[in-house]
Amino acid sequence: MKASDRRPLIFVTNDDGVQAAGIAALMRLATEFGDVVVVAPNESYSGMSHSITMQRPLFVSAVSAEPGLEVYSCTGTPVDCVKIGFDEILADRGGVPDLVLSGINHGSNANVSVVYSGTMGAATEAAMYGIPSIGFSLTDHSPAADFTASVHYAREIIDRVLRMPAERLAGLCLNVNVPDIPPAEIKGIRVCRQTRGNWREDFVHRTDPQNRDYYWMSGRFYNFEPEAEDTDEWGLRNGYATVVPVQMDLTDYSRLASLGELLDR
Amino acid sequence: MKASDRRPLIFVTNDDGVQAAGIAALMRLATEFGDVVVVAPNESYSGMSHSITMQRPLFVSAVSAEPGLEVYSCTGTPVDCVKIGFDEILADRGGVPDLVLSGINHGSNANVSVVYSGTMGAATEAAMYGIPSIGFSLTDHSPAADFTASVHYAREIIDRVLRMPAERLAGLCLNVNVPDIPPAEIKGIRVCRQTRGNWREDFVHRTDPQNRDYYWMSGRFYNFEPEAEDTDEWGLRNGYATVVPVQMDLTDYSRLASLGELLDR
Repeated sequence: MKASDRRPLIFVTNDDGVQAAGIAALMRLATEFGDVVVVAPNESYSGMSHSITMQRPLFVSAVSAEPGLEVYSCTGTPVDCVKIGFDEILADRGGVPDLVLSGINHGSNANVSVVYSGTMGAATEAAMYGIPSIGFSLTDHSPAADFTASVHYAREIIDRVLRMPAERLAGLCLNVNVPDIPPAEIKGIRVCRQTRGNWREDFVHRTDPQNRDYYWMSGRFYNFEPEAEDTDEWGLRNGYATVVPVQMDLTDYSRLASLGELLDR
Repeated sequence: MKASDRRPLIFVTNDDGVQAAGIAALMRLATEFGDVVVVAPNESYSGMSHSITMQRPLFVSAVSAEPGLEVYSCTGTPVDCVKIGFDEILADRGGVPDLVLSGINHGSNANVSVVYSGTMGAATEAAMYGIPSIGFSLTDHSPAADFTASVHYAREIIDRVLRMPAERLAGLCLNVNVPDIPPAEIKGIRVCRQTRGNWREDFVHRTDPQNRDYYWMSGRFYNFEPEAEDTDEWGLRNGYATVVPVQMDLTDYSRLASLGELLDR
């Protein structure tokens, strides 16, 4: 956190688009904690992972502005929104915020879904700038999902994160998922690790009016360790809001030494 | 590897598109080792990371076929190509190949660029299916880059990987980068870890003929540890072809315990 004599500057984005119910809930919540700048995609960028736009230029539009809450839409991905938000929109405010919030996503980003998630792409991008970030997701894909419980737990987690000492905030990135069950049945918050597993596809194959074959992606998650109680899938299935700390060093340290013996020369 | 009485089935993709010089070099090289099926994007998908296409259907076209080398193009991302390749194109050949090769990318995917890379998105996706995979990149962005040295080192690495025992192959994923220097000056192969750092943007801001502001992404890599000799950036700068083993468990294990104390309840 910067000097405590001013309100924190909080940057909000998502991957469902600036018009989604989930980001409306999150930006309102964020105003309880600080001054808020929103830069979010102008349409859905679900499944866009950590992608950036290199083949075409980006356009940014002011959507609304009131004291303490500015909203912009951008024609790019969630990661683009973070980058252009920091470099252009926040240029006269130090270039970076105190905290980045992404979501609330309509749908789970638990397990390996974190890898495909645009919501978490934006959060991890912020963390790569050293800015603490939190991605929030609700395990309900519907546009009209009820974000009451998500907002409750988001408020508690944001409050605790903003009270953390500065040395623990640098690069902090949290993947928070809230189960789609009645709020009173949620048991609490549980810090977990990412569940091992994979998404395997079963494409829907159809033929268009011009007689061309086309394919819709459709798959499901296979949990490689359904019994492990320290995973986010176990936590969600057992009624917890789950928190997985995330980092982006992809090095497989367990293989470094043996690969060195095989390949170094 | 499957039964040794048949040639390995090798799947090839990339993110520069099926027409790129880099994938032409890689698919030809792959035919030295096995039967080859190529499914690659129909245009450039650079910077697409691990993104998947959920908002529109995918189309697949046969590009060419000769004994031992089938080539298809797909209207999706590199990860889409892996998924539709496994689920549809390889459906009658067991649904998965023995090895996945991605590239050769026109441009470096060393350091944190691995996170943004479509080339490595495809490779890591294959590894999530348990299939060994290797992404190859040359630190030269030009369409007419010289892939001679890359092919030389790719041949050596593929040969060594195909000789590894099965238990070491499951989920193996390698990020290989070859420096853009005269082949004779390359010192050899060096297994490394991912360099810590980040890409920071400096958008090019212009006005279009309709007087709308637009922005082109443009940035550069900041190396947080230029002196560390075990990183891929150090290896490339010092004349080595670098190999980083990659995995996709993003959990920040170093923060699990302290976050649990702060948040569990």
